[in-house]
Amino acid sequence: MPIAEDILKFFDNPGQTPYVIEHRHEEFTSVCPKTGHPDFGTILVRYEPAAVCVELKSLKLYFHAFRNEGMFFEAVTNKIRDDLARTMSPSWLQIVTDWKGRGGVKSRVIAPWGDVPAAFGRG
Amino acid sequence: MPIAEDILKFFDNPGQTPYVIEHRHEEFTSVCPKTGHPDFGTILVRYEPAAVCVELKSLKLYFHAFRNEGMFFEAVTNKIRDDLARTMSPSWLQIVTDWKGRGGVKSRVIAPWGDVPAAFGRG
Amino acid sequence: MPIAEDILKFFDNPGQTPYVIEHRHEEFTSVCPKTGHPDFGTILVRYEPAAVCVELKSLKLYFHAFRNEGMFFEAVTNKIRDDLARTMSPSWLQIVTDWKGRGGVKSRVIAPWGDVPAAFGRG
Amino acid sequence: MPIAEDILKFFDNPGQTPYVIEHRHEEFTSVCPKTGHPDFGTILVRYEPAAVCVELKSLKLYFHAFRNEGMFFEAVTNKIRDDLARTMSPSWLQIVTDWKGRGGVKSRVIAPWGDVPAAFGRG
Amino acid sequence: MPIAEDILKFFDNPGQTPYVIEHRHEEFTSVCPKTGHPDFGTILVRYEPAAVCVELKSLKLYFHAFRNEGMFFEAVTNKIRDDLARTMSPSWLQIVTDWKGRGGVKSRVIAPWGDVPAAFGRG
Amino acid sequence: MPIAEDILKFFDNPGQTPYVIEHRHEEFTSVCPKTGHPDFGTILVRYEPAAVCVELKSLKLYFHAFRNEGMFFEAVTNKIRDDLARTMSPSWLQIVTDWKGRGGVKSRVIAPWGDVPAAFGRG
Amino acid sequence: MPIAEDILKFFDNPGQTPYVIEHRHEEFTSVCPKTGHPDFGTILVRYEPAAVCVELKSLKLYFHAFRNEGMFFEAVTNKIRDDLARTMSPSWLQIVTDWKGRGGVKSRVIAPWGDVPAAFGRG
Amino acid sequence: MPIAEDILKFFDNPGQTPYVIEHRHEEFTSVCPKTGHPDFGTILVRYEPAAVCVELKSLKLYFHAFRNEGMFFEAVTNKIRDDLARTMSPSWLQIVTDWKGRGGVKSRVIAPWGDVPAAFGRG
Amino acid sequence: MPIAEDILKFFDNPGQTPYVIEHRHEEFTSVCPKTGHPDFGTILVRYEPAAVCVELKSLKLYFHAFRNEGMFFEAVTNKIRDDLARTMSPSWLQIVTDWKGRGGVKSRVIAPWGDVPAAFGRG
Amino acid sequence: MPIAEDILKFFDNPGQTPYVIEHRHEEFTSVCPKTGHPDFGTILVRYEPAAVCVELKSLKLYFHAFRNEGMFFEAVTNKIRDDLARTMSPSWLQIVTDWKGRGGVKSRVIAPWGDVPAAFGRG
Repeated sequence: MPIAEDILKFFDNPGQTPYVIEHRHEEFTSVCPKTGHPDFGTILVRYEPAAVCVELKSLKLYFHAFRNEGMFFEAVTNKIRDDLARTMSPSWLQIVTDWKGRGGVKSRVIAPWGDVPAAFGRG
Repeated sequence: MPIAEDILKFFDNPGQTPYVIEHRHEEFTSVCPKTGHPDFGTILVRYEPAAVCVELKSLKLYFHAFRNEGMFFEAVTNKIRDDLARTMSPSWLQIVTDWKGRGGVKSRVIAPWGDVPAAFGRG
Repeated sequence: MPIAEDILKFFDNPGQTPYVIEHRHEEFTSVCPKTGHPDFGTILVRYEPAAVCVELKSLKLYFHAFRNEGMFFEAVTNKIRDDLARTMSPSWLQIVTDWKGRGGVKSRVIAPWGDVPAAFGRG
Repeated sequence: MPIAEDILKFFDNPGQTPYVIEHRHEEFTSVCPKTGHPDFGTILVRYEPAAVCVELKSLKLYFHAFRNEGMFFEAVTNKIRDDLARTMSPSWLQIVTDWKGRGGVKSRVIAPWGDVPAAFGRG
Repeated sequence: MPIAEDILKFFDNPGQTPYVIEHRHEEFTSVCPKTGHPDFGTILVRYEPAAVCVELKSLKLYFHAFRNEGMFFEAVTNKIRDDLARTMSPSWLQIVTDWKGRGGVKSRVIAPWGDVPAAFGRG
Repeated sequence: MPIAEDILKFFDNPGQTPYVIEHRHEEFTSVCPKTGHPDFGTILVRYEPAAVCVELKSLKLYFHAFRNEGMFFEAVTNKIRDDLARTMSPSWLQIVTDWKGRGGVKSRVIAPWGDVPAAFGRG
Repeated sequence: MPIAEDILKFFDNPGQTPYVIEHRHEEFTSVCPKTGHPDFGTILVRYEPAAVCVELKSLKLYFHAFRNEGMFFEAVTNKIRDDLARTMSPSWLQIVTDWKGRGGVKSRVIAPWGDVPAAFGRG
Repeated sequence: MPIAEDILKFFDNPGQTPYVIEHRHEEFTSVCPKTGHPDFGTILVRYEPAAVCVELKSLKLYFHAFRNEGMFFEAVTNKIRDDLARTMSPSWLQIVTDWKGRGGVKSRVIAPWGDVPAAFGRG
Repeated sequence: MPIAEDILKFFDNPGQTPYVIEHRHEEFTSVCPKTGHPDFGTILVRYEPAAVCVELKSLKLYFHAFRNEGMFFEAVTNKIRDDLARTMSPSWLQIVTDWKGRGGVKSRVIAPWGDVPAAFGRG
Repeated sequence: MPIAEDILKFFDNPGQTPYVIEHRHEEFTSVCPKTGHPDFGTILVRYEPAAVCVELKSLKLYFHAFRNEGMFFEAVTNKIRDDLARTMSPSWLQIVTDWKGRGGVKSRVIAPWGDVPAAFGRG
């Protein structure tokens, strides 16, 4: 599994006043651990930065590192939440993943961390 | 009728922090017990996992097992809710089913279990 | 980096009663400090004026001055917020920036200043 | 600048119960005081009448009278708000102006007067 | 496999002048002969009747009879074409089938019989 | 079955130069002769008049007279074509009927009479 | 019935090279001669001018003059065609009228005069 | 009336191989010579350049010069065609003007010059 | 590079009359040979079968086999065309590939083989 | 001005059979030589390759090299056409550029080279 500390890079939060950042990655792909078939999805990272922000290109490479990993949707979502929460210590964080239909089933996972404002409650 | 315990498979919840999972199956079909004609619908399973998550392929096979069952919409919806609540014991669970029009009537059934957050109140 | 005081021009607020102004610039471009590739985005400036309003052509020239600057999305957004807050001292201010996808990732940054009304909470 | 009292005409409010009126003028044009170039916009007048209503043809002629005036968007919006508030004394009034893009910037000005209901808060 | 002669019913063509009939069935389902999973599709039957027309309810029952058959898309399409051509002997006939994505692949099969007018060339 | 001669009324073609008339009736209903259930459809009458035009209200009453008739789509379409061709003797005529889905099947019937211009070939 | 010669005004064709003019009147109203109910429609006048053009305000007044006339759609369309052809003698002319649904029926009438280019064949 | 020779500027055609240029001005305004009310329209200039191209800013200023001119739509369109044909001598030229509804009438004028390719025949 | 002969499977063409098959794969991914970054695209396979049809699941596995191959869009498209033409010997074949934007550039490749009917000329 | 030979890279055409390639760059920007203001546009490159194809990343860098060049739309379009025709010698080539509105004017330039198929005639 991708090791966040080896890939993600951060830069000092350039703001002194609270604000919100959203990164939406529409080309995420990993592998189903059960069937070996590829999964495709969209990953939304939404957070209020504290000391640091995640650098965008490193975030993209971090997502690319899942390409040949066999993981369930739920595990992918939790790992991204936990990795970003641990390495960035943001004020709050929310991960929303949407997965393309496989066998007629579309899935979404919504994982909050800390005190996500109510306006973002449904993802 | 499909026996959930024989089909559904589970894996350990990979997260330690609460989160929400949605699976939307758009190719559900069963049979009307009155006319014998096929029914077509969409099934949304939304829940917050506790100890386990339902495995997606087994969920699909579970849905397929309704293919030749003669059941009313309401019975289908309740059976799915009860089967998933019993076998997974999630923190909470909500089943929303939408049925294609038959004779000009479209139907929706919303079945909650446990304490569904207000943001999802309308299904 | 653009020096707001050298470019932005203001005129006396022509109103005595509170009101809201929105300027949406759809042709913003700067440079990624990491890769040197151009970034493209939309900048929304929303504020309630106090003593002065920002003059539109000077705002456009101020945006143009970022054309060859190497700055992260977050830094651009914070700088615009801080520059406008400092030079205009509005009643409140909100900057929302949306960035075109690069490598499959689309980003949004929402930066409030002062007491932004709840109706504008998600940007 | 157009003198509201010379152009606008009114008629007695035919209703005894509160109601809301909206006039949307999509062919407003004035001149930029800075560049001399024409500006184009849409003007929304939304109000709850008290004793009188504004007569529609006179409102159109009032808008036409801005055709060759050099005024900022904010000044146009405030003048319309103040003129209508002064001459009609409505229960409340809101002016929303949307301006076509110039140099890639689109602008909106939202000017309330009195107690505008929350439902109209974003214009 | 469904035996057309046992299910399909016909009635005398009520017209003496040539005309075109289209029936679009949006809830077709059969089974993949390779994986055993259900397939879902839309079937368009377009023809110019000669001596007889196919009766709609019998056509629907004929489609329902594929429900548990394991057949490739191409075989389904050809069988429907051949069955209808043989039993109805229409002036001309065209079958167009569209299949829901399975594993990320969506399929269409276009099968003409006799002299289909050019206006219907792409299905 | 409705007797066209008893219901339809005509008036002299008010034009000396050829032209085209289209009447689209979106609230047609008849009864399925097989199941007794109501059918709903849209009827398009398109023609180039010769000596007379059909009067619109009488056309509507003519359509209403099908309300309790048990007839197949094809028979309805042919009867309308034949009735109008016989009673009006137009230069040419085309009837296009679209039928709401029944049991998942939507139908269209296209019935020309005389030399319909190619531009109207697909109905 | 409106007398074209009393209402329509013309001005000299300001062009020496052939060109096409289209006027689309979306608020036409006349009266059904059968029921006395109002009809509403859209009138498209399309022509290539020869010596003169029809003046727009007079055209509007001409349309208004039908307001209380009891005339069939076909008669309205032919009268407009004939009136404009007679009074303007254009190179060619085409009238297309679309009528709002009445009792569930929508109508269109397409009336050419002279040699209308093929590109405008369907109106 | 605007004098094209005083406003329009040109630059040498930078291409040696034929190509097509389209300029669409969406903020054209002039005055109705009959009523004095403002007219609003869109002007499309489409041409294949020969020796020179029209410079865009000068074209915009040329359009602005119609702002307070009283001219019919047809005259505006012909003047633009004739001015551009005379001053540029292009290989061919087409002017298409669309005018916002006034009194319920929307107008379009299509004016070709020289041999406009058939693909652009409807404007 | 994927070896078509090792992966693709075929079944006998179930039809005796010519017809057209389209398979659209919306989750294709390969790797850019220049940057090593993943590419994402849609692959359309359109053909008229001769002796055999390609089996859908094997086609999907064939597409999956490109997952970690470094190939240009043009090479992917040509290889798919050549592999399918060689192994199936269809009557004709057309491959259309659409690629998600990378660095602001979206690409399409259209590759015919044999005599593709004119109706499919733009892909 | 960008020197194509220094930036563009090519690779051998991987196909032996003719096919078509389209690259659409939606983030093109250059500078107006008259006003110094930035221009924004979309560039479509469509061609049938002969011996070589243009490499996508080098094409993107070639487009980026226009960022601070002062050039008219027409000159940009012709230069791209001429550069690509000269360096690639394709079977045929077509460049279509669309430019964002400036001062209310939107522009398009269509530049063919060689024998562009009729299906692409309007760009």
